[in-house]
Amino acid sequence: MIDNCLGAQRSRKIRRALRHFQVTIFCLVLTVVVLRGTIGAGKFGTPGQDFADIRDHLHLYSRKRAEPHRVLEEVQTTSSNENVGADTNAGTNNYNEFDINKILLDEESDESKRDPNVPFSLGPKISDWDEQRSRWLEENPNYPNFIGPNKPRVLLVTGSSPKPCENPVGDHYLLKSIKNKIDYCRLHGIEIFYNMALLDAEMAGFWAKLPLIRKLLLSHPEVEFLWWMDSDAMFTDMAFEVPWERYKDSNFVMHGWNEMVYDQKNWIGLNTGSFLLRNGQWALDILDAWAPMGPKGKVREEAGKVLTRELKDRPVFEADDQSAMVYLLATQREMWGDKVYLESAYYLHGYWGILVDRYEEMIENYHPGLGDHRWPLVTHFVGCKPCGKFGDYSVERCLKQMDRAFNFGDNQILQMYGFTNKALGSRRVKRVRNETGNPLEVKDELGLLHPAFKAVKIPMKETEVKNEE
Amino acid sequence: MIDNCLGAQRSRKIRRALRHFQVTIFCLVLTVVVLRGTIGAGKFGTPGQDFADIRDHLHLYSRKRAEPHRVLEEVQTTSSNENVGADTNAGTNNYNEFDINKILLDEESDESKRDPNVPFSLGPKISDWDEQRSRWLEENPNYPNFIGPNKPRVLLVTGSSPKPCENPVGDHYLLKSIKNKIDYCRLHGIEIFYNMALLDAEMAGFWAKLPLIRKLLLSHPEVEFLWWMDSDAMFTDMAFEVPWERYKDSNFVMHGWNEMVYDQKNWIGLNTGSFLLRNGQWALDILDAWAPMGPKGKVREEAGKVLTRELKDRPVFEADDQSAMVYLLATQREMWGDKVYLESAYYLHGYWGILVDRYEEMIENYHPGLGDHRWPLVTHFVGCKPCGKFGDYSVERCLKQMDRAFNFGDNQILQMYGFTNKALGSRRVKRVRNETGNPLEVKDELGLLHPAFKAVKIPMKETEVKNEE
Repeated sequence: MIDNCLGAQRSRKIRRALRHFQVTIFCLVLTVVVLRGTIGAGKFGTPGQDFADIRDHLHLYSRKRAEPHRVLEEVQTTSSNENVGADTNAGTNNYNEFDINKILLDEESDESKRDPNVPFSLGPKISDWDEQRSRWLEENPNYPNFIGPNKPRVLLVTGSSPKPCENPVGDHYLLKSIKNKIDYCRLHGIEIFYNMALLDAEMAGFWAKLPLIRKLLLSHPEVEFLWWMDSDAMFTDMAFEVPWERYKDSNFVMHGWNEMVYDQKNWIGLNTGSFLLRNGQWALDILDAWAPMGPKGKVREEAGKVLTRELKDRPVFEADDQSAMVYLLATQREMWGDKVYLESAYYLHGYWGILVDRYEEMIENYHPGLGDHRWPLVTHFVGCKPCGKFGDYSVERCLKQMDRAFNFGDNQILQMYGFTNKALGSRRVKRVRNETGNPLEVKDELGLLHPAFKAVKIPMKETEVKNEE
Repeated sequence: MIDNCLGAQRSRKIRRALRHFQVTIFCLVLTVVVLRGTIGAGKFGTPGQDFADIRDHLHLYSRKRAEPHRVLEEVQTTSSNENVGADTNAGTNNYNEFDINKILLDEESDESKRDPNVPFSLGPKISDWDEQRSRWLEENPNYPNFIGPNKPRVLLVTGSSPKPCENPVGDHYLLKSIKNKIDYCRLHGIEIFYNMALLDAEMAGFWAKLPLIRKLLLSHPEVEFLWWMDSDAMFTDMAFEVPWERYKDSNFVMHGWNEMVYDQKNWIGLNTGSFLLRNGQWALDILDAWAPMGPKGKVREEAGKVLTRELKDRPVFEADDQSAMVYLLATQREMWGDKVYLESAYYLHGYWGILVDRYEEMIENYHPGLGDHRWPLVTHFVGCKPCGKFGDYSVERCLKQMDRAFNFGDNQILQMYGFTNKALGSRRVKRVRNETGNPLEVKDELGLLHPAFKAVKIPMKETEVKNEE
């Protein structure tokens, strides 16, 4: 039964899970295992030939799409209506109210904490955030939202569990990962918020970022862009500055491809492990639209089934934020699409599988500052889960490659000071530039000691306040 | 023999060590054990009654001072000469040349890497750093060394080993510790450098900070103050801003007491786990004067013996940077003393032993922003060593108290967003302020969301360039 239900690849996982779980209902266990194994989705990074490479690399499995049930039909009918209306603020958003509330009403909730008659909400509806924010920025010129011409104030947000990792070495990799982020952000004038608190018990796991993001946007009106970054993502191009001007008319930037999301509804058509969200009413609205599939338990499970049916190639597991975003954008393109920038020109998120074996080739042929396949801005270890016990890849491969990625990035920091790692796989450093009595005449090759994108502009221009439409 | 040589307290450690080591020479093993057990010195924090409290608390042992041997007599004679001379730049510093070179020449070096005829050096002697730096600052007004009136540009430097901790949970505490520092520094406009590279193999362990500090000062002339902070030190007062103006005529600020250092030569008269060092020629000079006791092996061991004999209450172990600094200041007060500020008005370093049991009392009676015994700026877990295997205190007590200290500080961050930890010993948070539709009308109690000490001054004043005497 197991081999008929799934490919041979999964059998190994099931046997592993069977050692830990009692098999009461085969398919229920199956769902839980797949769920745990594939949390943190978003394996892929590039279209066309690269996408084909990734596919071969991962030996993707495919699922026969189930017959849509009534909820799905109604969702499709409603979303094709194109009657998006202007009143998103009043919460008449199809994705919000129709689908999930129907699920809530249809089924008894076995969660004592949730009152099914009360739809989930991230907080009181705010409809005038642009106005509130503008006013605040005017009254607080000492907290400008732009810290230089074309240089928005950015807050990078990341985090991990307040508990020690189940895998003892996991915390060491979290530590290296945050050091890596500290280095990039220091060079680029970006502040960091490291979260270790679960603000909303219902929105646990990958959904925890939503209440956190909302809270930070509302608490820090001076922040122009919030940059969410997973703890398993590392900066591998220290010299690459995000092209902020490119996004002047956008509010949400994710790595992905239009055709993969809007045409194919591919669950990995975009990645929510590293994205930019502009502070404003629009952000609050999309967070509200995004959240309903998140509350854990019945809601999340049922939503997961919808997503598996509706999206291309999505495995069976509870609703994750990334799939939910693909679904949201694909079904409500008119409402959100014009402000969403799916960026594929550089690796705002870069799937580690197709990058880490090429580091030596990159060092040979290219240089930092490119941010793309030649020298990726971000290498994202999706599926590795060094903190937990179940990952999609071998622990040894993951940890070894994470060390290499860390060093690949760290070398760019070390070279500023005349050092480099002895090898990408080594923890030791060696000197590559002698000490000198005239240190200020030495320029580091990459110009990272005093980069232009970090300098303060004298005199500082007036604060720019951007009003959203 | 063991019990005669040491107190009963040490016997436990020796028995534990004996499980791991073969006993070839009892005293050699003893020295190694004591060395490992007491690395990371600097347990104490306050004079007078507090000092007596600490003493009782730690059940200090005392050593009968050995008869000074010839090196010591010569050192004492030379240092009492008060002929310090002006030419410190030429390296005729007593501490440097006389003591250590004599040791090197007297004994055969068994370290193949060190040529005893070549004195240890942190780098080529630089004598005009103030001039080089002034020139650079003039040419680079976009990298000012003051980022506001009375607000120097500060770089907080910390770090840990590139290897996973021997104690599996150690990395988790390093992670919490860096999150804690990220939070404080974000609020106070301070940048962070997290080091994981050993720049000089000879200056390993606690001495590793010296080459690192020198490198960072010379690479970043825009940095006015470098704030070194141990990885086992945490910020527990998020609202306290260092009184920079107080130090306008000082170059080196450490927690400590003049009488403990200059009169008593007490090895814990100051603490080098958290200190401020102003960028300039003076800093390079004191680093050069500080370094000679550091090179591992014979030099460090012999220097350790000198320090144990010369300083009050110092146990037997190899030379550590803190004892060396006490010795340096006590023997060369005229050279350095006028620029060293031993601060005891607040806890730039706060010994955890006398603080952590009082957190509830502090919450009851006081508030953040005081920085002192009522609400310590820094709680420093000296002797705990959660990353390693041998600490001076029970692992359980250390970890439990580190959790409490972390939460004590983290509560001040969480309250900004309407949350708090359920208890100092809990990992879970609870809401203490409801969400609102007018978030900008809510002020967090501590005023940490948009504190004055972080605001940008509009318009920005001209850069202030401070020239050292």
